[in-house]
Amino acid sequence: MSGGLLKGAPAVLNLGVGAFAEAIGAAGGSVVDIDWRPPAGGAREAGTELAALVNHPRIEAANREAFGRFLAAEPRVTGIGSAIDVLPGMGARTVLHAGAPVAWEAMCGPMRGAVLGAILFEGWADDLDGALSLAESGAIAFDPCHHHRAVGPMSGITSPSMPMWIVENADGGNAAFSGLNEGLGKVLRFGANRPEVIERLRWMRDGLAGVLARALGEGGPIELKPLIAQALHMGDEAHNRNAAATSLLIKRLVPPALRSGADPESVARAFAFMAGNDHFFINLSMAACKAMLDAARGVPFSSMVTAMARNGVEFGIRTSGTGDRWFTAPAPVVDGLYFSGFGKEDAARDIGDSAITETAGLGGFAMAAAPAIVRFVGGSASEAIAASREMRRITIGENPAFTLPILDFAAAPAGIDARKVADGGVLPIVNTGIAHREAGVGQIGAGITAAPMGCFVQAVRALYRELAAAGEVPAA
Amino acid sequence: MSGGLLKGAPAVLNLGVGAFAEAIGAAGGSVVDIDWRPPAGGAREAGTELAALVNHPRIEAANREAFGRFLAAEPRVTGIGSAIDVLPGMGARTVLHAGAPVAWEAMCGPMRGAVLGAILFEGWADDLDGALSLAESGAIAFDPCHHHRAVGPMSGITSPSMPMWIVENADGGNAAFSGLNEGLGKVLRFGANRPEVIERLRWMRDGLAGVLARALGEGGPIELKPLIAQALHMGDEAHNRNAAATSLLIKRLVPPALRSGADPESVARAFAFMAGNDHFFINLSMAACKAMLDAARGVPFSSMVTAMARNGVEFGIRTSGTGDRWFTAPAPVVDGLYFSGFGKEDAARDIGDSAITETAGLGGFAMAAAPAIVRFVGGSASEAIAASREMRRITIGENPAFTLPILDFAAAPAGIDARKVADGGVLPIVNTGIAHREAGVGQIGAGITAAPMGCFVQAVRALYRELAAAGEVPAA
Repeated sequence: MSGGLLKGAPAVLNLGVGAFAEAIGAAGGSVVDIDWRPPAGGAREAGTELAALVNHPRIEAANREAFGRFLAAEPRVTGIGSAIDVLPGMGARTVLHAGAPVAWEAMCGPMRGAVLGAILFEGWADDLDGALSLAESGAIAFDPCHHHRAVGPMSGITSPSMPMWIVENADGGNAAFSGLNEGLGKVLRFGANRPEVIERLRWMRDGLAGVLARALGEGGPIELKPLIAQALHMGDEAHNRNAAATSLLIKRLVPPALRSGADPESVARAFAFMAGNDHFFINLSMAACKAMLDAARGVPFSSMVTAMARNGVEFGIRTSGTGDRWFTAPAPVVDGLYFSGFGKEDAARDIGDSAITETAGLGGFAMAAAPAIVRFVGGSASEAIAASREMRRITIGENPAFTLPILDFAAAPAGIDARKVADGGVLPIVNTGIAHREAGVGQIGAGITAAPMGCFVQAVRALYRELAAAGEVPAA
Repeated sequence: MSGGLLKGAPAVLNLGVGAFAEAIGAAGGSVVDIDWRPPAGGAREAGTELAALVNHPRIEAANREAFGRFLAAEPRVTGIGSAIDVLPGMGARTVLHAGAPVAWEAMCGPMRGAVLGAILFEGWADDLDGALSLAESGAIAFDPCHHHRAVGPMSGITSPSMPMWIVENADGGNAAFSGLNEGLGKVLRFGANRPEVIERLRWMRDGLAGVLARALGEGGPIELKPLIAQALHMGDEAHNRNAAATSLLIKRLVPPALRSGADPESVARAFAFMAGNDHFFINLSMAACKAMLDAARGVPFSSMVTAMARNGVEFGIRTSGTGDRWFTAPAPVVDGLYFSGFGKEDAARDIGDSAITETAGLGGFAMAAAPAIVRFVGGSASEAIAASREMRRITIGENPAFTLPILDFAAAPAGIDARKVADGGVLPIVNTGIAHREAGVGQIGAGITAAPMGCFVQAVRALYRELAAAGEVPAA
């Protein structure tokens, strides 16, 4: 938007802070006010503060710096390691989860189910009753994946002995991590915790991880940006559709796996598993996005969003200029396409760290690459194109590394500017799976949702206070 | 077009038989006559004959039958075998080539180069001089691939000991065959015949083929229509872009290859080779198309085109209702994008059996699936979409098995009606590689070309004579 808000006579669909709409109406613009209000008060003040931040030179310079670091990142997968060994600050009795911090008592059903499954997987309890007692006892530390440079899809539950992809940013020196994808159906990340789920996780740790580690050791690191770029030309958007990227990854890993000396039956089982799971790449996509976005963290006064994540209760975001803080609002219930026999009333709220892909300009932001995604939820190719175009209104720029064939290979929008979201009412779209609200049921649908406005309003207000403290704007 | 030609006041871009334009002008329509004339005379008679065939009930019924058989085909790759063992009628000193029959003396440079390479590969001569003497001696029989249920890209040169994909149509009981793809650069099919080319072919026969055969034996047949359909959703058009299909094929073959007992180093080399060649799938695509189209052959009075193929001198087509005859016209020189240092003056004429993909509704007909193809030759995504839409004007129908994401998953046009081409002046487009006109140089570019009108006019006239012989239309 870059300053156009209060010039001329704008026509605005106001989905945000009511005071914005009042100001526009007062200036002679036409406004359609959508029924939404921020959870906290202070709408009028927020509008005034936002106006002071539009085009602010300190923010513009900071965003150029942050966005530049993001664009320059070169994430490559270099190996596999246990969470306890590779995640900074990981504890021996720690369980990581998706999204912003949430206590055991507040966790949603599928996250609790996954926690219990992780306790069984680690052998900390013998059965679900024991696992529940342990989880309630306070003897387990819970912490967000994001606080340990990791990202996890859906519940994101990650325990110490789980194998993690190691993704290093060759440009910035930072690293990011994510577990291995279990496939669809009854899987831990959707809250399932029955014996076959735990068995699969143990094989992934004791069999699959070794094959992958040896293949990466034999073949060397795999650059993830070119691989994702190619997958975008093959119908993936790298969040809910990863069929191409999974195939490309397999193609890269097979020859070195075979030459690594791993026994053929283990290699065969590993690749049969990967070949049967078109979502296998999603965790690598997420870790690559995390590595690119972490490179942009910590630039004072930058309004660039560096994470969007949901813990099943709240949707949280972080921006580059506001440190480790999370800005949260209630997570939406996804109005998507439900599997037969399920409906919105069965759904957990939006959950998972996978919105890191949208934060990096993939997923919903690259929807034009994957019309199959919108079709799955009843939309059309033109809606997919419109989604990618719409997201340009809230991004700092475009990522020339990721191009969209339908749009004549235009670069995908990237780098969400929290100011533009708070200002214009265009919310970042997120492609997502939908978990049942109770533990153990698993996935019940998929859909397209949006990040809630409240997060962005809070982030902008926090940024205002940072600038006020520096004397750049009047004290709030 | 279905009968609209002589109704109303048509505006026509006439690219075909001049007499059609005269008739349209006489009827009050507006005509832009493109500078093109059929190689044979008889334009006025052809126009009269064509008019009698439009909407003819015998042809309409025959086309429904032929097109139905085509749609019902279920090509699956079932194994690998030597040409001498699996191709019907293959001789021990026979060399097959692309396109309609052509004698050694008339062959273009790259086809001659490939013939010499095949002679060396078979060990029938020790050096190029010896191979040339043998080729000129008349001791080698030359025959089209198509006469032995096979198809070969570019020169299409296929000799007795070469390994062939075996593709069986589970619906019609027919089978089709194609060799293994060598990759790009200096390869036999583009006319290269140096020692490294021959060495590679020998490894493909003695190493690669065995790994593939064991994998197919262990894993069972692979259905090709679903695989191609998926590849169309991943940016392939299954002629000049096969990156997705190649990945999907590898994904399918890896687990059974590993369980087949083949030694790991052979398996590793085979998959490294396939993983390094995004075109590896093209031969399977061609064999699948051949199997689908052969199912439609031999329906009396059908004007459905069942093959388009180029021998480097002439472009030839066959239709379902006209038996084994080829209808030929001079092959065009492709006005495509040439590699640095090369131009149109260096190019061989359009060559190869690979236009079987367009005949089956893939390649140029499915261009909307692969905007990267038109981009490669300087076009845009909208031109790719327009190409697929334009081809609907000359097809019998659409193939619901192959859908195009950009067009909201509309079915791809398929089943070329020779009458519609001859009538409307819309020529079937063909995506193709370009070979140097001299032996041994190899590929020098790629582009988009069109089948020449002359083939279709001749085919329609032959069909007219068939109908006349049956008393369905006046004698010519």
